[in-house]
Amino acid sequence: MANKKMNAFYAQSGGVTAVINASAAGVIETARKHKDKIGKVYAGRNGIIGALLEDLVDTGKESKSAIANLKYTPSGAFGSCRFKLKSLEANKREYERLIEVFKAHDIGYFFYNGGGDSADTCFKVSQLSKKMGYPIQAIHVPKTVDNDLPITDNCPGFGSVAKYIAVATREASFDVRSMCATSTKVFVLEVMGRHAGWIAAAGALAADADHDIPVVILFPEIPFDRTKFMAAVDAKVKQYGYCSVVVSEGVATADGKFLADQGLKDNFGHTQLGGVAPVVANMIREDLGLKYHWAVADYLQRAGRHIASKNDVDQAYAMGKAAVELAVQGKNSVMPTVVRLSDKPYKWKVGEAPLSKVANVEKMMPKSFISKDGFGITPKCRAYLEPLIQGEDSPKYKNGMPQYTTLKLVSVPKKLGDTFEL
Amino acid sequence: MANKKMNAFYAQSGGVTAVINASAAGVIETARKHKDKIGKVYAGRNGIIGALLEDLVDTGKESKSAIANLKYTPSGAFGSCRFKLKSLEANKREYERLIEVFKAHDIGYFFYNGGGDSADTCFKVSQLSKKMGYPIQAIHVPKTVDNDLPITDNCPGFGSVAKYIAVATREASFDVRSMCATSTKVFVLEVMGRHAGWIAAAGALAADADHDIPVVILFPEIPFDRTKFMAAVDAKVKQYGYCSVVVSEGVATADGKFLADQGLKDNFGHTQLGGVAPVVANMIREDLGLKYHWAVADYLQRAGRHIASKNDVDQAYAMGKAAVELAVQGKNSVMPTVVRLSDKPYKWKVGEAPLSKVANVEKMMPKSFISKDGFGITPKCRAYLEPLIQGEDSPKYKNGMPQYTTLKLVSVPKKLGDTFEL
Repeated sequence: MANKKMNAFYAQSGGVTAVINASAAGVIETARKHKDKIGKVYAGRNGIIGALLEDLVDTGKESKSAIANLKYTPSGAFGSCRFKLKSLEANKREYERLIEVFKAHDIGYFFYNGGGDSADTCFKVSQLSKKMGYPIQAIHVPKTVDNDLPITDNCPGFGSVAKYIAVATREASFDVRSMCATSTKVFVLEVMGRHAGWIAAAGALAADADHDIPVVILFPEIPFDRTKFMAAVDAKVKQYGYCSVVVSEGVATADGKFLADQGLKDNFGHTQLGGVAPVVANMIREDLGLKYHWAVADYLQRAGRHIASKNDVDQAYAMGKAAVELAVQGKNSVMPTVVRLSDKPYKWKVGEAPLSKVANVEKMMPKSFISKDGFGITPKCRAYLEPLIQGEDSPKYKNGMPQYTTLKLVSVPKKLGDTFEL
Repeated sequence: MANKKMNAFYAQSGGVTAVINASAAGVIETARKHKDKIGKVYAGRNGIIGALLEDLVDTGKESKSAIANLKYTPSGAFGSCRFKLKSLEANKREYERLIEVFKAHDIGYFFYNGGGDSADTCFKVSQLSKKMGYPIQAIHVPKTVDNDLPITDNCPGFGSVAKYIAVATREASFDVRSMCATSTKVFVLEVMGRHAGWIAAAGALAADADHDIPVVILFPEIPFDRTKFMAAVDAKVKQYGYCSVVVSEGVATADGKFLADQGLKDNFGHTQLGGVAPVVANMIREDLGLKYHWAVADYLQRAGRHIASKNDVDQAYAMGKAAVELAVQGKNSVMPTVVRLSDKPYKWKVGEAPLSKVANVEKMMPKSFISKDGFGITPKCRAYLEPLIQGEDSPKYKNGMPQYTTLKLVSVPKKLGDTFEL
């Protein structure tokens, strides 16, 4: 089997990003350049589920231009999933099934494009040679808006969401500044990040030497202290006349209770699931009596390809390309990484990390990145963040709208007669 | 006094937009070309309040490039306000004060940049010559994201918010489509529009011939019918696997009760003010059992200069320019308008409307623009909306961030010794 040209499996996993499809383009275009070693590239429809269900897409049926356009198209073109493989001991049947499908389609390369959970899945697949005798090379392609993967300097997907939040905070701050004399004085923006405050930190980039904007940040790493927070907001409003607050969805009090979880009930006693932004805004009204507006960016922040960071797009593509090159070199159980060489000018190169050291490790904001008062970022953090949002890489527009690609997604004929229950 | 060269007063009013500063640039740059008739342009700090408080900014102190850069800067560079003049009968003192300030600063031109309430204020000022013997020409410069001013084909500010919402809906729909196999199936986006559904309608532009995207719209013009709405969402999810919902903040039930007003109370019995998006999302969970995500665009949609419509920017500038030209022609109590000449190719010219017919008239979505089921737009509506979002007009970027201008805002020395209480 070692001498046979094997096919590749590629899949997207977890929450999608504005640039995960650029990684897909990197994998597919690079594999097409290594036809001596890699046969077809099959994509899993909806992540690993596509492998388990033998629901494969033949990327060879997509035109060169369609694959190139993936670089400008947000979200997961092949569908993603929230599905974590159990351990080999807990669910051996899943691994046997993967091997059946891989065997049936001559798959010898496994490229999995995701975050922490996906790195764990990829790591488990990478052990199949050793544990179940099926020769496969599993390479993880890093992706997560949360920026919480270890070893790599940053994660593709994060730079674009950071840029989105920085731009949105700057723009909304200009708005509240206009209104503050007679109306709204505080603007609250809720951003993603359940455990790590990387995205919230990007809100601080709204301000710079040319844009003196008051921003108060609530990080999930810092227990919420209502008194201190109100004092911070009040001071900014007194100084500037207004204030912007960027709050991470994962902000919690010292006892570990999410601020978003206020046990809201409607007129009929039904539980209502709200966001953290309205909770914080209401507190500001109660404690400071200030008029507020609030926004919840949700999917807009991670799907906002129109305002993607060029550096992020380039790195997403580079990770996909590097994954294939690592595979061609015979590597298994690794992940390409971004290695930062310098901040100014920003220079980086592709590195490599063993999956055993990536899976199930979460990288939080270092303490040295959060200002002493807990509501802002340090110069060190700014030096880290700034390069990641740099450069614009606009999609093509037609009739005023960005043109995004929908693939044909031609299915690979099934070879296994049976079906598999997830 | 008629032969004396008079100064001009310009102010921004009401909720700001991504392009209101382009109108300011149009006023100031055009006035600078008419130095034979118009002296200085004084801007009111925070709208009409600047006039009442004699808090004026000398726009002559701003450089040519700073004024030109206003075309790329969102929100109100001079500050806006939420303040409506009462009638002459109800508060004569306010009008007397305006005249005192105008007299003290030789102001003979009044340019007011706002929506419906502001048109009313501007109309009242335009009557000062007749009713109180002070010669002033008052011209209204149309601006409102709500697109609800009469006579003009559309309102500057709307095109850019429409583009923002159309793009956001397209991008978030790609996201939920990626996730729907195992996770989120419905995405709910709350947009502005308390009375008129123009902004919500723009969500339909997410879909076009090249982008087959299921969008269900909740208009404030259509009483909310929970059963019919759920049937619409359910049908889309069955057909596509997912669905996007764009909901106007002003959606109400047949008895006139805002859907957003659910009487939410927290654990302590405190009232919580939430948005309509989480309410609709919770209903979808209760009735259809589907996993959802929701976003509230709030200020992001109207401050999003980075994704402004070029046609909108051009029209905002043209309205400011035309206002000055109307003044130079000796007009009073009018508003320049956009007159549409054709949809394809889009052609328009500047028209003119008497303020008496503009003030306090609200333009709703015509019935012929809403599809029969009440959840979408008609081809006629699409033909109306499409030109308004066309063209890109990107601001300059530095270090990955759009560069927005903050003016020097040099105050005009006060000439009146007294102070005025608002």
